[in-house]
Amino acid sequence: MSEQPATGQTPIDALGLPVVLLSHRGPVSFARSAAGRTAQRGSGGLVTALTGLAGHLPEAVWVCAATSDEDRRIAVEYGDKAVDVALEPAAHISEGDEPGPHLRLRLVDVDPRQHEDFYSVIANPLLWFVQHGLYGLASAPELTRREREAFDTGYAAVNAHFADAVVEQVHAHGGRALVMLHDYHFYLVAERVRRECPRALITHFTHIPWPEPDSWRVLPPDLRERIFRGMLGNDVVAFHTRRFARNFLLGCQELLGLRVDLDAMTVTAGGREVLARYYPISVDVASMEAMMGSDAVQEHLQALDEAFLSDRKMILRVDRTDPSKNIVRGFRAFDTMLGDHPELVGTVRFFALLQPSRQDIPEYFDYIGAIGGVVAEINARHGADAIELRLESDLPLAVAAYSRCDVLMVNALNDGMNLVAKEMVLVNSRGGVLLLSENTGAHEELGEFAITVYPFDIQQQADALYAALTMPAAERQDRLVAAAAVVRHNDVGRWLRRQIRDVLRLPAATDG
Amino acid sequence: MSEQPATGQTPIDALGLPVVLLSHRGPVSFARSAAGRTAQRGSGGLVTALTGLAGHLPEAVWVCAATSDEDRRIAVEYGDKAVDVALEPAAHISEGDEPGPHLRLRLVDVDPRQHEDFYSVIANPLLWFVQHGLYGLASAPELTRREREAFDTGYAAVNAHFADAVVEQVHAHGGRALVMLHDYHFYLVAERVRRECPRALITHFTHIPWPEPDSWRVLPPDLRERIFRGMLGNDVVAFHTRRFARNFLLGCQELLGLRVDLDAMTVTAGGREVLARYYPISVDVASMEAMMGSDAVQEHLQALDEAFLSDRKMILRVDRTDPSKNIVRGFRAFDTMLGDHPELVGTVRFFALLQPSRQDIPEYFDYIGAIGGVVAEINARHGADAIELRLESDLPLAVAAYSRCDVLMVNALNDGMNLVAKEMVLVNSRGGVLLLSENTGAHEELGEFAITVYPFDIQQQADALYAALTMPAAERQDRLVAAAAVVRHNDVGRWLRRQIRDVLRLPAATDG
Repeated sequence: MSEQPATGQTPIDALGLPVVLLSHRGPVSFARSAAGRTAQRGSGGLVTALTGLAGHLPEAVWVCAATSDEDRRIAVEYGDKAVDVALEPAAHISEGDEPGPHLRLRLVDVDPRQHEDFYSVIANPLLWFVQHGLYGLASAPELTRREREAFDTGYAAVNAHFADAVVEQVHAHGGRALVMLHDYHFYLVAERVRRECPRALITHFTHIPWPEPDSWRVLPPDLRERIFRGMLGNDVVAFHTRRFARNFLLGCQELLGLRVDLDAMTVTAGGREVLARYYPISVDVASMEAMMGSDAVQEHLQALDEAFLSDRKMILRVDRTDPSKNIVRGFRAFDTMLGDHPELVGTVRFFALLQPSRQDIPEYFDYIGAIGGVVAEINARHGADAIELRLESDLPLAVAAYSRCDVLMVNALNDGMNLVAKEMVLVNSRGGVLLLSENTGAHEELGEFAITVYPFDIQQQADALYAALTMPAAERQDRLVAAAAVVRHNDVGRWLRRQIRDVLRLPAATDG
Repeated sequence: MSEQPATGQTPIDALGLPVVLLSHRGPVSFARSAAGRTAQRGSGGLVTALTGLAGHLPEAVWVCAATSDEDRRIAVEYGDKAVDVALEPAAHISEGDEPGPHLRLRLVDVDPRQHEDFYSVIANPLLWFVQHGLYGLASAPELTRREREAFDTGYAAVNAHFADAVVEQVHAHGGRALVMLHDYHFYLVAERVRRECPRALITHFTHIPWPEPDSWRVLPPDLRERIFRGMLGNDVVAFHTRRFARNFLLGCQELLGLRVDLDAMTVTAGGREVLARYYPISVDVASMEAMMGSDAVQEHLQALDEAFLSDRKMILRVDRTDPSKNIVRGFRAFDTMLGDHPELVGTVRFFALLQPSRQDIPEYFDYIGAIGGVVAEINARHGADAIELRLESDLPLAVAAYSRCDVLMVNALNDGMNLVAKEMVLVNSRGGVLLLSENTGAHEELGEFAITVYPFDIQQQADALYAALTMPAAERQDRLVAAAAVVRHNDVGRWLRRQIRDVLRLPAATDG
């Protein structure tokens, strides 16, 4: 087992079980250049957190999708054998006993048309929209034969394919393992894995909101029931917040007629008890702090200082251009605030670092247009540099901006967690005030130190911006310090340890 | 008290309390012509049901809005005194002891600008949209200072104004009365009436859906809390279905942190217990049957027989052009069904009798355009008379069509009850099959005799249409007879008696 002791009272080593992870995106993707095979580390909260986990567990295997051509070549080359990847100094396929953290990867190649139906017809538009409440139900969705077939031949087929890859890895460990499934791509996997591997312990973590029962009625009963039944193949279904875990149980009760216990947070299905739990995910504090000290961040910081000088305040947002992030209303609130307080015009700028996202989905394509439109309108009204819009992804720039901002706006309609909020409070050095939507997962932890915003109420968001910009320095600092302490305590290691602790308490954990 | 005994085991007379009703629309509206003052009876399920109630209770006073100029003249003329209206032979203000059913009306005049904010900024767009789940949350609503002010100076002010009119009437009866408040226009009335009339029994009936807690988060906390707190001024809050009553309690729990009992269906607030109950409203069976025999209906029936001949089947829908009715997807399902079963082209027509509605609300205006667009598209594809679209309101024509149709499509996104479904099964004479959305209130009673449709799934609705059109005659007839029996049993009299029975069981009913 690992030399590296896991911090805290529940060492991950105590698990005593091999771990099989499944997520759609993996920790590394490969490419081929003139210099040969190269590897690039994945980004994003989930991948970072799980990479931390896998680094602690040499016996872990991470099952994920082959996304590049080179990934697919490796998938063919290695078949059902896992690939040993050394992560340092740069990620590469390891040929022998190298020191430093390793990962074992099982890249799964999927037929491109099945993958398209799975990913671009079901998971990202349909499930994402249902779970974030994004549909304007008067006109969308229109579920036709196309979507019904895509659920069967895309989503369900791809889930079965990944389930089989997981089953292989569990069987390679003698049929006994902890299987940790991740996110909305894989709701149907647990049921199949349980059938094939009755001695496995299976958990599923949903990283996006789990809405109330009636929201699921957007899907016809056979689809929504397959999703819930698929999830009931787990021993533990996990979410970021109490609200989501409770919604899962209410859905079992209302949509499937199952017996639930809302105090014990369990549901009984097929004679088995399934636990609904919540564990707020977090960031890797050490790596955030390391990045803060990097040359790239420091250079950006200097440029930001020059652009904003010391007396211009910065309202920041860092998001994908996802309609769930509520970007347009955020700008309208800024506009309203400047209209209500014209003395602030010119003294405060809105810096928006927005990564274009899912431009193959019409609503996302239109949303970038709406963002551009409202920015032009506001800059025409209040000065050409009132809002600085950057449509790109640049993590060092984002971190520099977290450090420098006076206000961070997180006004999402609905958001499973929102790690941007946690990153900002960790590295900010100006008493940055967090404006945090009540509908983010992060609000359960950080709401008391933030100014809560209500995502549909533009006037309230405008008033919140003004309150943040005029808050006394001491109060700003107190709130920031308190929020950062929560993030440091509830770090990603704790997120993981709490899950492992609950798995170890399962009756099935000692049944062997 | 009334000479007319109420049928069933709980005579309304047993109430022994004067009744004060409140609804926005009243049972009669007045006009002035060359011949003098004329009165027109209101239509709609609620008004019909309450007129039945008031007819049984000579001591009842009905408080409602003055909607015409003549109504306003009467409001000024009579002040806070109720107007005695005889309903037969034609409704008129009664000057003495006339035989036949009477009503006592208290017309309330409201400042037009307040009323506009109350009705056209808050009640009909905002509350209606929130409660029917109609917003595309990525872009709407945008709550600004305008909406916030309209809530205060419109909705809350108009509620206070009507509450004062109710209080006057309760005081005129010595402070002890049964106050029955109705619908989404008046969520804030009970709290004020209770404060002024602590000995009153107060109930509120919501005729539209009451959605799950998170749906209310579209409103900022002060607004949603005022609505829930307003409702908690009642002794009983009533809805059409178990689901809506339960959602109310869950909202009290999640949004206000109150203690609820989901078995007893109660919530405790301010030391008082409030009951959440459900009573499915229905139609007046006798008056539906009387109308069926009327000349107007019989003439329409003959015309329909000529238009459809005996061998052409009729799919019918009768609705306001409200996006919640899901009219466009219904036509798309018909299109899909004809595409899947081309042998049916020409043998079945879709007759859509749609009353234009709320054309001052942009989404409604656009929706009529969408309806016209999809009808043109489908008629171009399948024949010019595939869909016959009539944009008008014509009750005798609707009743004739109920009688003649082979299939009635009720595929609403969300609908408090849907009386169209009940009317059709009462008067249909061709084994008409009901297609009924799972999201209508009527589905709790009639779902087992209908073909359930899932409003977002066009393919499923197309398959349901085909199943209905090809169902064996005996099965069609059996289902129709069974559904009609349920409607006859759960008629509007029973709706009312069950409410009165529960009021009589309240501890406060005997406290006096």
